Amino acid sequence: MDLDETLLMTPGPTFTSHRILQAASKPLVHHREKEFVKIINESYEMLRKLFKTENDVFIITGSGTAAMDAAVSNIVEQGDKVLCIVSGKFSDRLRDMVKNYGGTPVVLGVKPGKTVDPKLVKEKLEEVKGIKAVTMVHNNTSTGSVNPVRDIGEVTKEHDVLLLVDTISSLGGDHIDVDDFHIDLCFSGSQKCLALPPGLSFISVSQKAWEKIERKESKPFYLDLLKYKKSYPQTPFTVAINMVFALDESLKMLFEEGLEKRIKRHEICAEMTREAVKALNLEPFVEDEVASKTVTSVKIPRDINIPREIQRMYSDSKKKMRDKALRETLKKYGVLVAKGQSWKISSDEKVDLLGEIFRIGHMGLVTPKHIITTITALELTLKELGLDVEIGSGIKKAEEVYERRLNELRK
Amino acid sequence: MDLDETLLMTPGPTFTSHRILQAASKPLVHHREKEFVKIINESYEMLRKLFKTENDVFIITGSGTAAMDAAVSNIVEQGDKVLCIVSGKFSDRLRDMVKNYGGTPVVLGVKPGKTVDPKLVKEKLEEVKGIKAVTMVHNNTSTGSVNPVRDIGEVTKEHDVLLLVDTISSLGGDHIDVDDFHIDLCFSGSQKCLALPPGLSFISVSQKAWEKIERKESKPFYLDLLKYKKSYPQTPFTVAINMVFALDESLKMLFEEGLEKRIKRHEICAEMTREAVKALNLEPFVEDEVASKTVTSVKIPRDINIPREIQRMYSDSKKKMRDKALRETLKKYGVLVAKGQSWKISSDEKVDLLGEIFRIGHMGLVTPKHIITTITALELTLKELGLDVEIGSGIKKAEEVYERRLNELRK
Repeated sequence: MDLDETLLMTPGPTFTSHRILQAASKPLVHHREKEFVKIINESYEMLRKLFKTENDVFIITGSGTAAMDAAVSNIVEQGDKVLCIVSGKFSDRLRDMVKNYGGTPVVLGVKPGKTVDPKLVKEKLEEVKGIKAVTMVHNNTSTGSVNPVRDIGEVTKEHDVLLLVDTISSLGGDHIDVDDFHIDLCFSGSQKCLALPPGLSFISVSQKAWEKIERKESKPFYLDLLKYKKSYPQTPFTVAINMVFALDESLKMLFEEGLEKRIKRHEICAEMTREAVKALNLEPFVEDEVASKTVTSVKIPRDINIPREIQRMYSDSKKKMRDKALRETLKKYGVLVAKGQSWKISSDEKVDLLGEIFRIGHMGLVTPKHIITTITALELTLKELGLDVEIGSGIKKAEEVYERRLNELRK
Repeated sequence: MDLDETLLMTPGPTFTSHRILQAASKPLVHHREKEFVKIINESYEMLRKLFKTENDVFIITGSGTAAMDAAVSNIVEQGDKVLCIVSGKFSDRLRDMVKNYGGTPVVLGVKPGKTVDPKLVKEKLEEVKGIKAVTMVHNNTSTGSVNPVRDIGEVTKEHDVLLLVDTISSLGGDHIDVDDFHIDLCFSGSQKCLALPPGLSFISVSQKAWEKIERKESKPFYLDLLKYKKSYPQTPFTVAINMVFALDESLKMLFEEGLEKRIKRHEICAEMTREAVKALNLEPFVEDEVASKTVTSVKIPRDINIPREIQRMYSDSKKKMRDKALRETLKKYGVLVAKGQSWKISSDEKVDLLGEIFRIGHMGLVTPKHIITTITALELTLKELGLDVEIGSGIKKAEEVYERRLNELRK
């Protein structure tokens, strides 16, 4: 199988485009020269439009986790109580970070695939005195469920605590309005809905957040947000210049399409995927009401046949066998999807979805045609693994959804 | 002036090549798939050959400062005494980092453009009891002088303290032998002698360093080296995939040329530059004995004429005027060089070389033909700024050096 032919349908990194890759391969200009500052300024302006904010927005050279780390390490001080809404692997990581920097996480655990109830957040903030901040993930990459950021923002505003939100797998694919949602630190990454290669991350910082940051004694160095503020619009350290070229191009593409229409496209791809898998008698991992626009998790049927070779290779683990059987077969048909992840809700409650679910990413530049390709591969995979699948029933359903909704993409 | 035509002769970012940019623009493969792990493993193997080490080597998605921060923040604990050899802007940054993480810097200041005497390091380690580590920069990007890492490595080994060395502007352009020099943490970046775009950094970690890291209580998160060790050969967080493609290509190019021959090329370009500027009656900022192979600093003549427009724009600062007059004129002739930087040697000793020197980078893919182009632009610039320059005298001298040494590149 030629590498280039594998369609990346993982929830990030997602496939990118020639236009973006060409921008990334332009010859370097020096990052301290006015020619570059013009380009990065253009990107900042578009990023603020994308975040829907008047707050400061910065570009950090690093993985999405770098911006996440910047948010936590600039805010959390020794002994700070932080309410951590743990609803998946990355919100578990946020809790780890809070602890890492000496904070005391107050955990509000969410059952995998469920969504957090803002009333519980309110109750927790009233029950536990002195909470300084709330951390959460908007779109759970690990389950495909979405948390109600807007409603939680109302609660944190009312209680005057900081709100830190990971929008890594939703910014540009779902509704985020930093100012309207009262998000103090909003962070995202390049390789998800912006369809860039990984290597850049973004963060917005509210005035309320700056007040805490400025008072804080211990600071990170590379991720010190005050350094980013001071250098703005330049970066304190050499930025990934070619990635900024690519970012600029990707944001131009986004606003050419139009943000609202882009979100609709994600929504339609999500509905096509969900309805198709249901038509194939598979079960989506989360309810329709809380389903993500950018990633769909699907339960792996218990009764698939495991190919002998995979039985031999993973004889120690039934979970691995099921996961590999499904995903390796899909890959043979040219489509790469992601495996189930594991995390801790609390110290005595662990989740392990490996072999339980697989995850289809439909973010960035994914269009209905890629969903059809993916569902085709899925039908053939299920059949090959011994399930009673009516060939064509999934893609028929997907096409029906597409037909019903295509006017929303045209107007 | 078309941007693309400006020749980047700064000490990083340096210009890159089509071959590298093409590798960077290959379609993404997923970073957790075996196809990618094969590529990154190949890069790790070449990086260890380049660092000349059996130690662990990691790739960090971030600027060079990210790897520098990883070195310091994984090692330095509250109250740790660290001997900081401050010989330029980036060794000043290392001292800042030590302080940032609660360490107590013991400063050994070096006059700008000079080099540190290993005997003084030895004396300091004997005089101040309990020093845990020494930080230093191998090649001073801000002055163009080189510090004797090998000799200092002998001293730190003898005194059983950790040695942290910044080789950001020397790795791949000058002799570095991590194991032979007893370097415990050696860090470097992509946009210097490897001629990559910025965005990746590298770090090697010795067994002695691991012992300190493992005992250390407070840890960074994104830059936690133990996380890199645990995930190896994968990365703990999504790596800049396309930059790894480019790194792989750049390292292949390096070993096709041959490391020794590549260092010779840097050395010859440095000598061509130094001899040419002397022939033009300019004064190199550092003595021949301590001169860098990758960057040459040159004093800006006091008696240049400042164009009226620049006089008006920078009327508040004579230094800025001189700097802009020289570098903007050079840029008109298609060559970008870097300005003088400022830093603190100690709390009461500051250095500001803006307007005092300009810096020519000759690293990465710079060849004798680029030196000739640069010197040509310099001759025309000096003439335009009213100096008595014999047109052709600099490039003649450069060519003579080239002729005398070209056999070293051929054998």
